[in-house]
This record gives sequence, structure tokens and C-alpha cells, in this order.
Amino acid sequence: MMEGLVQHDTPLTLKHNLDRMRGMYGDSEVVTLTDDGVKRATYAEVGDRSDRLCRALEGLGVEQGDRVATFCWNHQEHLELYMAVPCMGAVLHTINIRLFAEQITYIANHAQDKVLFVDDNLVSKVEEVLDSFETIEHFVVIGDGDTGSLPNAVRYEDLLAEQEPGYDYPDLDDHTAAGLAYTSGTTGNPKGVLYSHKSQVLHSLVGISADVFGLRTVDRVLPIVPMFHVNAWGLPYAATISGADLIMPGRFLQAEPLAKLIESERVTVSGAVPTVWLDILRYIDENEADLSSLRDVVCGGAAVPVHLMQSLEERHGIRMTQAWGMTETSPIASLARPPEGTEGDEHWRYRATAGRIAPMIEARIMTEEDGEAPWDGETTGELEVRGPYVASRYYEDPSGDEKFHEGWLRTGDIAAIDPQGFIRITDRTKDVIKSGGEWISSLDLEGELITHSDVLEVAVIAKPDERWSERPLACVVLEEGASASAEDLRDHLSERVVKWWVPDEYAFIDEVPKTATGKFDKKVLRQRLDEDELGERVKVGGDKEKASA
Amino acid sequence: MMEGLVQHDTPLTLKHNLDRMRGMYGDSEVVTLTDDGVKRATYAEVGDRSDRLCRALEGLGVEQGDRVATFCWNHQEHLELYMAVPCMGAVLHTINIRLFAEQITYIANHAQDKVLFVDDNLVSKVEEVLDSFETIEHFVVIGDGDTGSLPNAVRYEDLLAEQEPGYDYPDLDDHTAAGLAYTSGTTGNPKGVLYSHKSQVLHSLVGISADVFGLRTVDRVLPIVPMFHVNAWGLPYAATISGADLIMPGRFLQAEPLAKLIESERVTVSGAVPTVWLDILRYIDENEADLSSLRDVVCGGAAVPVHLMQSLEERHGIRMTQAWGMTETSPIASLARPPEGTEGDEHWRYRATAGRIAPMIEARIMTEEDGEAPWDGETTGELEVRGPYVASRYYEDPSGDEKFHEGWLRTGDIAAIDPQGFIRITDRTKDVIKSGGEWISSLDLEGELITHSDVLEVAVIAKPDERWSERPLACVVLEEGASASAEDLRDHLSERVVKWWVPDEYAFIDEVPKTATGKFDKKVLRQRLDEDELGERVKVGGDKEKASA
Repeated sequence: MMEGLVQHDTPLTLKHNLDRMRGMYGDSEVVTLTDDGVKRATYAEVGDRSDRLCRALEGLGVEQGDRVATFCWNHQEHLELYMAVPCMGAVLHTINIRLFAEQITYIANHAQDKVLFVDDNLVSKVEEVLDSFETIEHFVVIGDGDTGSLPNAVRYEDLLAEQEPGYDYPDLDDHTAAGLAYTSGTTGNPKGVLYSHKSQVLHSLVGISADVFGLRTVDRVLPIVPMFHVNAWGLPYAATISGADLIMPGRFLQAEPLAKLIESERVTVSGAVPTVWLDILRYIDENEADLSSLRDVVCGGAAVPVHLMQSLEERHGIRMTQAWGMTETSPIASLARPPEGTEGDEHWRYRATAGRIAPMIEARIMTEEDGEAPWDGETTGELEVRGPYVASRYYEDPSGDEKFHEGWLRTGDIAAIDPQGFIRITDRTKDVIKSGGEWISSLDLEGELITHSDVLEVAVIAKPDERWSERPLACVVLEEGASASAEDLRDHLSERVVKWWVPDEYAFIDEVPKTATGKFDKKVLRQRLDEDELGERVKVGGDKEKASA
Repeated sequence: MMEGLVQHDTPLTLKHNLDRMRGMYGDSEVVTLTDDGVKRATYAEVGDRSDRLCRALEGLGVEQGDRVATFCWNHQEHLELYMAVPCMGAVLHTINIRLFAEQITYIANHAQDKVLFVDDNLVSKVEEVLDSFETIEHFVVIGDGDTGSLPNAVRYEDLLAEQEPGYDYPDLDDHTAAGLAYTSGTTGNPKGVLYSHKSQVLHSLVGISADVFGLRTVDRVLPIVPMFHVNAWGLPYAATISGADLIMPGRFLQAEPLAKLIESERVTVSGAVPTVWLDILRYIDENEADLSSLRDVVCGGAAVPVHLMQSLEERHGIRMTQAWGMTETSPIASLARPPEGTEGDEHWRYRATAGRIAPMIEARIMTEEDGEAPWDGETTGELEVRGPYVASRYYEDPSGDEKFHEGWLRTGDIAAIDPQGFIRITDRTKDVIKSGGEWISSLDLEGELITHSDVLEVAVIAKPDERWSERPLACVVLEEGASASAEDLRDHLSERVVKWWVPDEYAFIDEVPKTATGKFDKKVLRQRLDEDELGERVKVGGDKEKASA
């Protein structure tokens, strides 16, 4: 092999992000919404405080490779932990504060966390599981509130104040572990994804690429998606490498404070799950709010309703872009930016997809029968991805090895890819409905049902059926005071999907059960169906014949 | 070390760019301006032709690591060579067609090129040096024109037509050499920079980042900068990874065809040296042309006159951005996008710099006396850079080793870096003027003199001086019919720079001698000064006292 003569031994580490942040972008700022209004710090200050934080961690006995956990909202101190912990050679473990108690216990012990940083307003949640922690030696509380019963709790500001300024950062190999995040699967134990410095840096480079987040120094970025959820989609690291300002919402994730924050801080880019923006839409429909500074709202974590995107764009001039990814993909794997010149229905068909495959990512569709499927936009199968920031396996958990084969990650999503690289996800492998030998997409049915004005939430699951093996059952939550009948819903669907897809049974329920990350928990619905506890169920006629064709 | 569990073994190779280009961006296009109007091909077609090209190269005996040379303008076939040659494992050597005959001979033999691809309209230039080639076994002529005396010349289209479709690309290590470009230094032999797949891919990722070229799928990119000049600044590879269209000017590099091409093809981004845009400015000042599709014109290769940027922006609404780099830096190392909210003089001071340090690049200023200088915007010294797409040494030429030390590249530029990471280049190390122990910036003097309406070109060189050791001598080319005197020029400068910088001698010359790449060749001017052959020289009084302070 003839080797290129470039500086191949330059490690791609987050130290590069830290150096840019505190150096050339030292005037950029992180703004945090707190109980007492907004708090501001320059990136130069964050850099200096990160130095002190590294010294403090050393003082607490943290060594290279040790896991340092956070149990925090999005704020300046969390950003300092994002920079300091990996740059000193330790591993940042961001615990999802919305997990169930037993899951928190499991992952803290599985990760063998040594130190836990916790927000004062979350102390009580930690106290609930305090006795179950096996490895945590130190608790550091961020904020002035009560430290509760946490043993030997230290305050974050006291810890930093004690330290000398400056820190001598180690030279790290770029394969070194930098961050750890657990997936909150609905089956089995949570599984840890262990990011490296190289994967985080490459992901931040992809994040600033123009067709992804396209962050620029002049941007002001509001990560509503939590920093305890797949690195807030990489927005903090993308901001630090590009000098974009970060606007942190703290614990104020309701529509009103978010809308006011966007308005007062002139936010240009935001990232959040659909639920948050459904709330913001409702708020700005009813209240005066100037959100004209926004140039792009990236939305993901669940299928984004087209009517949400359309309402934001048509009524408020706000552009929303759907993105897709997983904890295992760092997470950005695709973004739905339609090709030039598309209009009307065609335009919205692209916008409704999971998006076009991101740089550095490769994707393929694997069918059970024929192997790799063509990119025809129609053939569905399991979506598989690979790339330099995709997980290669889970942290100390061989039970997850089946997710990886031939160097590819099996995403568990059923999808088709069109000739232009747009991914259309039709289902989760475990949620798929197989009727008369053919697949029915529960996501498509849900997408159509939600457009009915009486429907607030809907989840479609498979119901065992003697003749067809499975048939779709629509579990529907109606808007308050609404009165749509099963026949109304059937008729609504009949105009929109092929006849044999239309469910012949509807369950009217009070609420769709959700997982810790707010996703619909169909496992619980299926369980209730088994136990015949699924609210009021109504059967209506239907033409299922095509399913046998 | 605790290693991250990500797909670290994913090679970053140009095959990724090729796959994206021909696959998801198969509908994007490359448009080439030819003698017979514009020629179009989709990226899917380019991909298919690249397959055939790989087969053809194998047929010609090209093996992995072999050098394949091009002697071509910017066009579709050159793009095919950009994709096929590295992806089959060979090394693309882009020869600068403007080099002097003896330089072409030197680099073709030094690189041991095996095949040479040449445009029909450049055959005669190759014929001049044909007898001096020691290693070239095959000549492939692009176009229908005369193949001249090239031995056993094959036509490009015939070669492709003979091949079967498809090609089985090898799996390459990403350190594998991908491209070779020689610097055209004004001293010593040209030196080869050997890019790897990894460096090209990282450079293309940086190229699509929003504050660099920010290429998007919807962009239409016109690389006026030649593909034989540092990979056309990486624009082709950035376009292929992002799906942006490429608009290729062929050999039509004059203002009129370029302006018409921008207008008819709705070009959004372009890259070129200042000279080209000075011509285009003159053309659009005098002719109707709608260049409103342009959102960014990146300019570099020589200091960009501020009046050029201002004239384009004020009179035509065209935004020009100055960039800086070298063959050794792939080349993008900095871009001058001013911080938010800067206006007036402050704004233009930023725009006039070499720019802010690009992602993946680190920079420092090294002074002779005190080592690394602070980023105060004032302390000047030699600019050094490093990063994963910066050369580590020259290809088989230890005589260039002095350019590399402590893992850094010595750029040969004298510069200061300000606290925000903007690089201000004041001189070349070899052009610097040292007067009374202080440095005088020849670039600054040139920048001020060129704003005089009578001055067409100017180069300031050092003149030996008994008392001050050196004094600046301004070599001036006046506009046709202009009559500014040495006193006029001195008075013009006196209002703009400190007194002791003002040259007390002016040489009126017919033309500034230029290197093969169009840069001012001060070495020739100094030589003429030594030999007392420097046109009409006029001495005027001046106050040099501060120089002794």
C-alpha cells in the first residue's frame, strides 16, 4: 500500500472542540433559563470552569476511563461536564432522568459510575434509588437547593471554587471512550452505547454540515431535546466546534417559557421531539409570540405528524425538518430536506419521511426472503446502518449482540429507501402487523388517523386473528368532548388507505401508555389486549379480502 | 485505555463520496461548457463511466499505488478521473498545465506517472516536453481534436466504450494515497503533496460545513479555480458528498463566458482567484448580467483586494468571502466570515483577513525570539498549522523537511492571529522587509497602493540600504494613460500608513512578472533590482526615523 503523507496521527478528540470553544469562540455564550431568569456565561468562562472541573474530578479520585454520571437538565454546568469529563480522559455517562427507578439503578450499577452530578431539583428522584447504588462514591449537587439525604454531598460551585485555575489535559488516543448512553428499550435491560472521541468529533462535523444542522458561528441553538438523551442529538458538540451560541432551557420545557425564550434570545435553530412542538404550536396559535428568528426546527425521536409541520409553516412561517436516528447512531442518521423544486404533495411526501441518509452513514434494507432490497421506495425490510459513528456493540452486554451483524447495525425499524436515499419507516419490527401474508404499516394507519380532528392520540397494534393471522386494532384517545364513532374512523381511513388495511376494530382508551422517554409503549397495549383490559372495543365491518390475494 | 465501542474500522474513503454521488444524488448533474455549448451528465452517469474508467485503467496496466496523471481543464471527464483513479486504489496526479516546460518534465518524472490523460486542446503543450518523459506508458486524449505526435494515443471515449459496465471496487485502508499535487514554489524543485483517502474525505466534510463552503444538495457550484490546482480547493469532492451540482467552465476562463455561464446555469457558489473576479467585475460593470443566483463567491490563492469585495457587494449584491490555504493544507485552512453584528470598517477589517481557522485545523504564530506568540492580533511571526488533512512531509523529497517541525507545517507566511482566530497575513517570510530592526509589511503597502485609481498592479520588495539594512521599493504598473508620479503615490500612502513605512523609491514597470500559477514573482523583481534592470526608478524624500526607534 502506498500511504498518503498527511498528519494521520492527528487524534480527532473533543479537546479540539474545547480549544475552539474557549479560544476563537470565547465570546460566544451559553444562556441558561433558571428560576431567577436567564444566566449567561461566555465560552471562555465555560472553558476556564471546565479546567477547574477536571481538577475537581481528579481530586475526587476520577481516573482515565472512569465513568462520571450526570442526572441533569440542559444547562451551563451540564455543558461544562460535557467538555471536562471526556477531555480529562473519563467517560461522561448521561443518565436519563425519566427512566423508571429500577432502570436508573440498573444502569448506574452496570456502568459502575464513580461520581454522580445531580441538579438540586432532582435530588429527591435520586434519593428514591440511593440505597441501590453500588459504585457511586461521590454526589455533587448543582444549585443551591436542598442536598437531601445524599451522603457527603458536595456543591458544584464549592468544588470549582476550591480549585486552582488551568489544567494540563492529557493527549488521548481518539478511540478512547468519551460518552456512555443507555437505550431505553421496551424489552430487556437498557443497553449502553459507548461513544469514542473520534465518533463524537465526526458526528459534530456532520452536525455542522449545511444539509444537517448547518450550525454557524452566528447561530443561537436551543436544544430542547435533553442532554440526557443521546447527547441532545449532538447539538452541544456541534455548537462548540462551530462557535454557535447555546440557549439552554433548564427544566422549563413547557410551551410558554420555551416560546418566550425563543423570542427573547432570538434562537435560530432548535431540536425537540414532536410532543413539545405540538404544545408550542397550540401556545402560539393562541398567544402573541415572535418566533421569526427561527430558521430551522429539527424534530425527531418519534414520527413527526405532517399536520404539525404544515401548521407551523403555514400559520407561523416556522420551518420544521424531520430527522431520524438512534442512541446507537450518535444519533443523526438522516434528515428530511426535500430535493430542489419539489412542490405540493410531492414536497410533503419527502418532508414526511425519516429523511435522506446523512454524510458518513450507509444504509440498506434487508428482507427476510431476498436479502438486500433495491432502493425503489417500495420494498420494505429491516433498516440497517453503518458508519464511523455507529455503535459496534453494546457496553458489556452480549445479549445485544444480535443487533449487529456483518458490520451493520440492525435498527429494528421496517423501512423502504427510495432512489434518492430518503428513508421511509413503516414500522418497528416488533410492532409490525402481518395480515394474510402481507404487511400492514401501523405507523401509516396512525399517521392517517391522527389527521381526524376528533383524535388526540392513536396507537395501532396487531390483534391475533384466526383467518388472517393478525389484524390491526386501533387504540384511540379522543379529544375532550369529541364523539367520533368507530364507523367515523373507519370511513375516514377508507378514503385514505387500501381497503384491507382498514381496522375492523377500534378501542377507545383514556391515554396511550408511554415509555420513560415518552414513546408509545405498544408492549403495554398488547398486554392489556391479552388480558382483555383495553377499554371500550367496537367492531365494525371491513373488506379484508385483498390481504389474502 | 477504555476504548469506545463504535465502528472505528470504517475506512473514510472516497468510495463513500462516489457511492453517495451515483446513488442518492444520481439525479444531480455535472454541466461542462464546451466549444459546442454546454454538455450535461447526471451523477449516476458519471458513476457508471467511472466504473468503465477503472476497467480501462486496469487494462492499461495501472495497479494500486500507480500514479495516473491529468493535464486537463475543469470538465466532466476530469471529475470522472477524480472519482475513478483513487477509488480503484491508484493515485490521481493533477499536473498544473501552466507550469513551465522543465517543471512539467520534473514532476511527471518525479511522480513516475504511468498514464497521462490530456485534453485535445492541450496536446501541443504536452508535445513540447514529450521526449523528456521517462515513465509514461500511455497517453489518453480527451476530446475529438488532433492527438498530435503522442505515441499510441488512445481516445478517452473509445477507451470507455470498449469496457464492460460495472466495477468491483477494492476495500481500501483510508491511509491509502489518493491524490498528488505539486507546489509551484519559486525556489527549488516543485514538491509533491500526497493526500490520502482519509484526508480528502475529512476535507470534503469540512467543505460542506456551514461556515466553510456550506455546500448543500440544492447548490450549483462553479469551480473556476482549476482542478489541476489543489483539487479545485476540494469543491469537486465536497459536491459529490453533498449532491451539489457542478458547473465546469472547461477552458473558458474569461469574464464574458463565465458571467454568462453563472447567469444561464444559476450558479450559487463559486471559487476563484482574485484576478478572475477583477475581470468579471469589469465585465458586469459594463454589461448586463444577472448574477443574482450567487450566494457566495469564495476567493483566495492571493490576497483579495478589499475594493474588489466592496465593489461586487455594493454595485452588484455579490458576496465574496476570502479564504486561505496551501497545497500542503488540502487547501482550506481559514475563511473570512466576520463575527455577527460587525459593521462598517470593523466588518471590512475582518473581511480583509485570511479568515478564521477552519474546523480540524490548528494554527499558531511562532516568533524567532519568543516562541509561540499570543493571539493578540498584533504579534507577528511565522504562521504554522497542523491537522488531519495537513501534509506531514513531501513525497520523496527530504529537501523539504525543514518545512515540518514538531508536527507542524511551517507555512512561510508571516501573520498575526487575533483573539477570535482570524489570521492576518502580513508577508511571506522570504518577502519580508526589515527596516531599522522593524518589519514592514509589503502586503499592506501593496494593499494601500492598489487603491490609487492610477495603479493597475504593484509589488513591493526589499531594497538593501546601508543605514536601515532594508527599505521598501514599490514596483508599480500604471493604468493605461495614467500619469501618477512617485510623489503622488508617496502622498497617497502617507495618509494611510505610518510614515516610516512609506517607500522613498518607486519603480515604474510594464508588468509584474508572475509565476506559473499567476502569483507575483518577487524573486524575479529582486533579481532585476540586483542587475539594475528595474524600469524607471524615482526617489522621493521620506521620514524613516521611526524605523530606528
